[in-house]
Amino acid sequence: MPLLGFVLPFFGFLVVLVQNARVEDWKELAANGVLSLLGFVVTFKFIPRIKDKFTEAGLFGYDINKKGLAPGEKKIPEALGLISATVYILCICLLHLFRQSNNVELYTAAFASVTFMVLLGFADDVLNLKWRYKLILPLVASLPLLVLYTGGTSVLVPKPLRFLVHGRSLLDLGILYYVYMALLSVFCTNAINIYAGINGLEVGQSVIIALAVLFHNALQLRPHGSKDNLELLRQNHLFSIDLILPFYATSLALSYYNWYPAKVFVGDTFCYFAGMTFAMSAILAHFSEILLLFFIPQLINFIYSIPQLIGIVPCPRHRLPRFNRDTGKLEAIHTNLNLINLTLRITGPLTERQLCIVLCTLQAFCCATGLLLRAWALTWLS
Amino acid sequence: MPLLGFVLPFFGFLVVLVQNARVEDWKELAANGVLSLLGFVVTFKFIPRIKDKFTEAGLFGYDINKKGLAPGEKKIPEALGLISATVYILCICLLHLFRQSNNVELYTAAFASVTFMVLLGFADDVLNLKWRYKLILPLVASLPLLVLYTGGTSVLVPKPLRFLVHGRSLLDLGILYYVYMALLSVFCTNAINIYAGINGLEVGQSVIIALAVLFHNALQLRPHGSKDNLELLRQNHLFSIDLILPFYATSLALSYYNWYPAKVFVGDTFCYFAGMTFAMSAILAHFSEILLLFFIPQLINFIYSIPQLIGIVPCPRHRLPRFNRDTGKLEAIHTNLNLINLTLRITGPLTERQLCIVLCTLQAFCCATGLLLRAWALTWLS
Repeated sequence: MPLLGFVLPFFGFLVVLVQNARVEDWKELAANGVLSLLGFVVTFKFIPRIKDKFTEAGLFGYDINKKGLAPGEKKIPEALGLISATVYILCICLLHLFRQSNNVELYTAAFASVTFMVLLGFADDVLNLKWRYKLILPLVASLPLLVLYTGGTSVLVPKPLRFLVHGRSLLDLGILYYVYMALLSVFCTNAINIYAGINGLEVGQSVIIALAVLFHNALQLRPHGSKDNLELLRQNHLFSIDLILPFYATSLALSYYNWYPAKVFVGDTFCYFAGMTFAMSAILAHFSEILLLFFIPQLINFIYSIPQLIGIVPCPRHRLPRFNRDTGKLEAIHTNLNLINLTLRITGPLTERQLCIVLCTLQAFCCATGLLLRAWALTWLS
Repeated sequence: MPLLGFVLPFFGFLVVLVQNARVEDWKELAANGVLSLLGFVVTFKFIPRIKDKFTEAGLFGYDINKKGLAPGEKKIPEALGLISATVYILCICLLHLFRQSNNVELYTAAFASVTFMVLLGFADDVLNLKWRYKLILPLVASLPLLVLYTGGTSVLVPKPLRFLVHGRSLLDLGILYYVYMALLSVFCTNAINIYAGINGLEVGQSVIIALAVLFHNALQLRPHGSKDNLELLRQNHLFSIDLILPFYATSLALSYYNWYPAKVFVGDTFCYFAGMTFAMSAILAHFSEILLLFFIPQLINFIYSIPQLIGIVPCPRHRLPRFNRDTGKLEAIHTNLNLINLTLRITGPLTERQLCIVLCTLQAFCCATGLLLRAWALTWLS
């Protein structure tokens, strides 16, 4: 069962965490662990019980990668990301009771932005908003963070570029930093949303990115650097673990039902929710440059999609491969410019399940490379 | 046009406000005024543009009080409270930039709880959750407030009851205060939700209660009492105006479309949203006892409904009066125990429009009485 691939690396994270966490962190980490486990169980139990309500409410889709076969005729409930997101919000809420750090405002701001994003994402799933709204919604949802953000507005300048700013290592972006935060939210949410369309991919990529973020945080719990901001850096990474661990747990439960053959679809709700959670975590724990290393498949997919996104190449509603009923495999459509079709052009026709495994492996490979480059990238930055 | 009745008292509020506000409050109040006006305009313009999307998405209902007539056959879009609530959340968010008081945490907690409530309310409208969930959802949504609340946990003991607590004026409820806050959220949301069913009533009662709360706050901006907590009391009432003025503005825009004959329905989304906004405002500005004075019709409706709510009397899905197609009037159904039918038993058959005006007038009367009793109640409490 490929889902084991989503679980096994977690134990690696635990090992690094045990290695690096301090005694005084364990109360918060243990509470997070217990709440995340509960979050997993509740999501896992609740989805099968409630999914028919979604179909009854008209929230369903047909699996177009199985068109012409019996499973392609079945109504699959859509937007079940609502359940994992709601359980996630509850976990984050209760976790606050056990948190020791004092950045309550930013924690609440992240919480509010994610909640607002889930609301707007679900509204999008229900109302099928026009494409242009998809860019505006994450911008709107990031407003709570933008108005509440009181942290620094400086970015680290990579060493080779410092000559541009008179050798300084920190560049205060001022108001531009707020623009940067807003753009990161828009990028993360939409990058996941347009790298989708086959069973298991949206949740699969998100779970793998979550694991990479968790590894990064655990590795950074004993940060290097100047003595005076060590404690601050440590707090940042604890903060990020607080946000990402429950996300990993609830998404894992969702992935069980979304994996091929999908019993539920996750909806824009999930894509927006996942992207916003990553953006909040990276912004508030100040590792957005590292996060982008984990988003390399999404970046490639986005850049490769640009000709269709801006309308140079015609863009259909779904940019999926063609399902060949005779072979049971998906075949690349050359005019659909995205990573799914590009992969199929390289590998040749694959079944939907094989394709998802290939793409998840690619994601894992990029994240692992990102983690390896991380140490080098941090030196390059600091 | 009866909607004028919702607007004219607002000028009374402005007069009291000008009388009582200090020079240093005006920056915040002016920002609130401008944002609320913008909120009104955006809601007013946006609802007609988006309402057909709701119908297309299967979010619509038939107007059962017009059954058998042409308007009763028309699909009326449902859950448009989502629009006024989303615009409200944006207003509250932007208003933060102009707020001068330093209770950021509580403001964000209120914000998060209201957003979460709108999400769950909209999910309820879409998924048609079972009745038992209706009690749980507000409880869940109030969690952000409960975990973030760091204010006092004491209540004022009314003078005649002080002998019970050895003459003390303040009673520290401790953990029970949290139970009290949760119950108030559940009561306010459901009290509005079950006092509904005829065109304009849900929004009408909410707009009138909002006006009463605004009046109360404006009157209290020059509080009496001991000198040392005067500033704190003033901040509380500014805080409450911050939360309620944009609510009044966006709900007013919604009421234009929901008024008889309704072009849109507001949905559980609106009822939950309104109730939660009132609860947050009253809890955080510490006037929940006064708020209950404005909720007297809802209290009567709730108490009168109990036999049906707990199942002693059979409870149909809608507990509405009977529409008489020949007279065009609504007639009381004696077994439907709510304030709508009780009113019809007293007044005799009324048209839906007349009935809504009568019930709104009753609401206004109770709120005005509450405001008059307020001074006496405050003496009685302090």
